[in-house]
Amino acid sequence: MPSRNIKLVLSYDGSLFSGWQIQPGRLTIQGTLSDAIQKICQEKVLPQGSGRTDAGVHALAQVASFQTSSSIPSDNLRKALNSNLPETIRIISVQDAPADFHARHSAKAKTYEYRMYRGDICPPFLANFVYHHPYPLDENAMLSAASLVVGEHDFTSFAAVDPDRTQSGTEASEAQSSNVRTIISSQWERRPAQFAGGDLSGYELVYSVRGNGFLHHMVRNLVGTFLMVGKGSLSADDIPRILAAKNRSAASATAPASGLYLVSVEY
Amino acid sequence: MPSRNIKLVLSYDGSLFSGWQIQPGRLTIQGTLSDAIQKICQEKVLPQGSGRTDAGVHALAQVASFQTSSSIPSDNLRKALNSNLPETIRIISVQDAPADFHARHSAKAKTYEYRMYRGDICPPFLANFVYHHPYPLDENAMLSAASLVVGEHDFTSFAAVDPDRTQSGTEASEAQSSNVRTIISSQWERRPAQFAGGDLSGYELVYSVRGNGFLHHMVRNLVGTFLMVGKGSLSADDIPRILAAKNRSAASATAPASGLYLVSVEY
Repeated sequence: MPSRNIKLVLSYDGSLFSGWQIQPGRLTIQGTLSDAIQKICQEKVLPQGSGRTDAGVHALAQVASFQTSSSIPSDNLRKALNSNLPETIRIISVQDAPADFHARHSAKAKTYEYRMYRGDICPPFLANFVYHHPYPLDENAMLSAASLVVGEHDFTSFAAVDPDRTQSGTEASEAQSSNVRTIISSQWERRPAQFAGGDLSGYELVYSVRGNGFLHHMVRNLVGTFLMVGKGSLSADDIPRILAAKNRSAASATAPASGLYLVSVEY
Repeated sequence: MPSRNIKLVLSYDGSLFSGWQIQPGRLTIQGTLSDAIQKICQEKVLPQGSGRTDAGVHALAQVASFQTSSSIPSDNLRKALNSNLPETIRIISVQDAPADFHARHSAKAKTYEYRMYRGDICPPFLANFVYHHPYPLDENAMLSAASLVVGEHDFTSFAAVDPDRTQSGTEASEAQSSNVRTIISSQWERRPAQFAGGDLSGYELVYSVRGNGFLHHMVRNLVGTFLMVGKGSLSADDIPRILAAKNRSAASATAPASGLYLVSVEY
């Protein structure tokens, strides 16, 4: 009988994975992790993540939980998992958690970042790790637009229209019955570019958002809409109207996966 | 008749390439670049690099030259090449150069860096971009050892024993008849780790070396030897003896390719 409840914190480069969720015949984070746990603990378990990440999306500190009857001490388990996982998935910590801890159900807040590279030529080392957008953007307008989603709102306009996924039980449908979420902070900031060598002189424009929950594609749809504000196709003043429409077609296209990072999960 | 001599500066992520030099049936930087130039200039040319980089070695600013009769303006050529190259190779600049400019023969000095990640867990994003070395190292001893290769020395002890390569014409055998090279600067320094998220608390230990030329594997063999000094298997005082031996077996194993970057070439 499983007697321990384990909390894992893990980081991954999502570039070569078909997302978090296990799928037959696909390389996934959850599937790869499940195989490593089975090899070490001699039990078939499916670790539950704090939420799914899509193909190409990265995590600095995703959280997962699973139950096991293994008696391997936590830190030995961490080392053994890292020895059995590809270098693109790293277990940062393993802890015994209270029996009622569940990585998804217990989550109170999450933080995501979306990294854009600003400059004519994207450093080749960042190809999978940022969204390269070399065209002019009104960054002040994007900052204003970002501030207008702070607070409690119905985010239907920014949620993927995805009936299959809703039926199969997303964080959204399981944890909360509506598309109302509370955004605690939402902002854009410039950061020095990482890995820029030679004569490259770009910078990163990073969107950071913290909230009590996120719908499928919500961060990427927010970023896609803020980009339209940056380009002048929308104004920041359009954000309240888009929220009020409660219709996906009111917002803009989904930004590419490569720039998105799950930064942390709070409990 | 080719009427222009072109100088390219390019950056690449060497992770998925079998090195610079064109080889049948292999993905190489030179071969990929040659194909892109042929597509745009309608001429079959083999761009000459400032030197070869091995499989997995990266470049922040490699330099290559080739002759062409194309009349495409330099900056348009740069854009067209970038449109036809994978995102892991980026052309930073294209310039018309004097007729006698040759990327390898005209090079006066080069700078390389070797990046090590110091910390228990290497961020998954850095797996191809650093050498992960989590074990204790005496960094002061490594710094002392590095300083002892500055100046003019015969670097035979740090050169790959590679008869095929010598015969086919390396920078070394073509440009200089001996294994004597002058190292202008050679040092280790700590830098903040890039891409470290979550609770990771490592840093990078970076070796930077500038010299008038480098033999095959020379930087990686220097790093491998400095690592032995850091581990206490050798002392810094052993460096003069290893140089004097003029024998590859006097030095230590070659450090892995993933940490090595060609940073710049001076003319």
